[in-house]
Amino acid sequence: MPTEIDLAAATARLAGVARQTPVLRSRLLDETLGAEIHLKAEHLQHTGAFKFRGAFNAIAALDSDIRARGIVTYSSGNHAQAVARAAQIFRVPATVVMPNDAPSSKRQATESYGATIVTYDRFRERREDIAESILSEQHFTLIPPFDHPDVIAGQSTCARELFETSGPLDQLIVSVGGGGLISGSALAAHEVNPRCRIVGVEPESGNDVQLSLQQGRIVEIDVPDTIADGQQTTSPGKHTFAVMQQHVDEIVTVTDDQILDGVDYLFRFQKQVAEPSGACALAAILANKINVAGSRVGVIISGGNISPERFFELMEPRWKK
Amino acid sequence: MPTEIDLAAATARLAGVARQTPVLRSRLLDETLGAEIHLKAEHLQHTGAFKFRGAFNAIAALDSDIRARGIVTYSSGNHAQAVARAAQIFRVPATVVMPNDAPSSKRQATESYGATIVTYDRFRERREDIAESILSEQHFTLIPPFDHPDVIAGQSTCARELFETSGPLDQLIVSVGGGGLISGSALAAHEVNPRCRIVGVEPESGNDVQLSLQQGRIVEIDVPDTIADGQQTTSPGKHTFAVMQQHVDEIVTVTDDQILDGVDYLFRFQKQVAEPSGACALAAILANKINVAGSRVGVIISGGNISPERFFELMEPRWKK
Repeated sequence: MPTEIDLAAATARLAGVARQTPVLRSRLLDETLGAEIHLKAEHLQHTGAFKFRGAFNAIAALDSDIRARGIVTYSSGNHAQAVARAAQIFRVPATVVMPNDAPSSKRQATESYGATIVTYDRFRERREDIAESILSEQHFTLIPPFDHPDVIAGQSTCARELFETSGPLDQLIVSVGGGGLISGSALAAHEVNPRCRIVGVEPESGNDVQLSLQQGRIVEIDVPDTIADGQQTTSPGKHTFAVMQQHVDEIVTVTDDQILDGVDYLFRFQKQVAEPSGACALAAILANKINVAGSRVGVIISGGNISPERFFELMEPRWKK
Repeated sequence: MPTEIDLAAATARLAGVARQTPVLRSRLLDETLGAEIHLKAEHLQHTGAFKFRGAFNAIAALDSDIRARGIVTYSSGNHAQAVARAAQIFRVPATVVMPNDAPSSKRQATESYGATIVTYDRFRERREDIAESILSEQHFTLIPPFDHPDVIAGQSTCARELFETSGPLDQLIVSVGGGGLISGSALAAHEVNPRCRIVGVEPESGNDVQLSLQQGRIVEIDVPDTIADGQQTTSPGKHTFAVMQQHVDEIVTVTDDQILDGVDYLFRFQKQVAEPSGACALAAILANKINVAGSRVGVIISGGNISPERFFELMEPRWKK
């Protein structure tokens, strides 16, 4: 579990490097919910998601000679772009293992940060095996997408900023994939706002964390069928599970349709483009899955990486005249 | 022309009332243009556009007994919502004269702030006549959409905030309808950043301000055929023309297609939803209509009020798979 020193180090490393993302307010949202909602616009972070914080921190924490040999990760999503950009800042090589059917927009974005892409056939090969072989052959360092103390410590800086900007909150609502963001958020709250309830939100079909916390052990599920591609994880990590067991108060789930309600709301009333996983936390309060009445609530909009074409495809049934 | 005292009064009246909207940065945009671009996200202002500043300031400047009798304005767009909301804050009645074929979303938004809507047939009646008859019968005060010193002074606070946040700029790019925002911006620059070039952007088919400044007199054109509905004005106002003649350096124009490039860019890379007029200033620099290389440039994203249905209609030809 990341220590207080790890968290402080992450805060120092990211100061002036990560964007201090704005906190958006909405009179309409407050009136509708009878609450005070503080939307942390983390989709405006570098590379379009909170992932930059964890990736940069973990790479910054390496010894410089180790870092110089190169970084490797596996991800087809926001973590890939985050690692690629962080490695670019340190001018060290990055290799990203990605399925050969990953969306070309995500591949292009990752390549635009100078990373080398290694593709694999996800029906015949395991990405961990590919990454392992690169690691052993080339002496690269693996930066995993969530299950790493320095990744978690990096993610903690998002909630810390929110508490600094908005003051003490009664509840903090966070979307949950592998648990990196909520683990970091919970640790930040534990330090600076210990009375804040920490609530995680998973897609209904991908409730591996909810099941794991209920059963008190890491539960593995099949790859979830959900539009929330940032939350298609099959189980929490060892580190994130330990933090969540201790510090997370509740996990709720939302349907894909409720997630799209969140995306719709953010577009319509907040003028923000969120990807489905990025709108997941807001979706839970719009769907009354969490009792927020009368409380000061933080909600992290965790990512905005969605191509206009995919956005159009998802929203067309609602918005087409 | 608004005086320095008018500007200072507007700043004081709007402090803590208008949102201090964020300034967004983009590494990609800076690299693409070889410039330092500061996007003032004024579409995140109350009621979704800069118009709130001018409307609130003009209403706040009235004697309280005059204000209490009520406010009237004519607008089918962002100024209508701004006046309605500002009047609601002061708990005074507002009447908005709107064509009977105005988009229902704009009508609903205006009504949601408690205003009374009076409709007219724009093919048979003049909105000024309707407003006049309301004024004379009911002793309301007219708050026009742009041609009023206190409206201009209110709009000046947007650029003032940008200079405060971003420091001195070499150029400030502003979309131009009736000239309220650019007049306010130019006056703010004149006070705090006098070396800043002020550049206005009009839709190609609605270049009434460009023509007026070229000819040195107020030119009236037909209602422009453009998607930029916030800029369908037919001539600048007397006050705004006077300010622009003295303080605006250049007016450039963009096509509707270039405006949509701006909307597209803001969606794709900044995760922001702008209405066409709101993306007009950015569109001009993306289309290389203004030489920005090597300079520090402010760009105001002036509004975000567009229904998802209309947004999709406009973007479908580009984004539909």
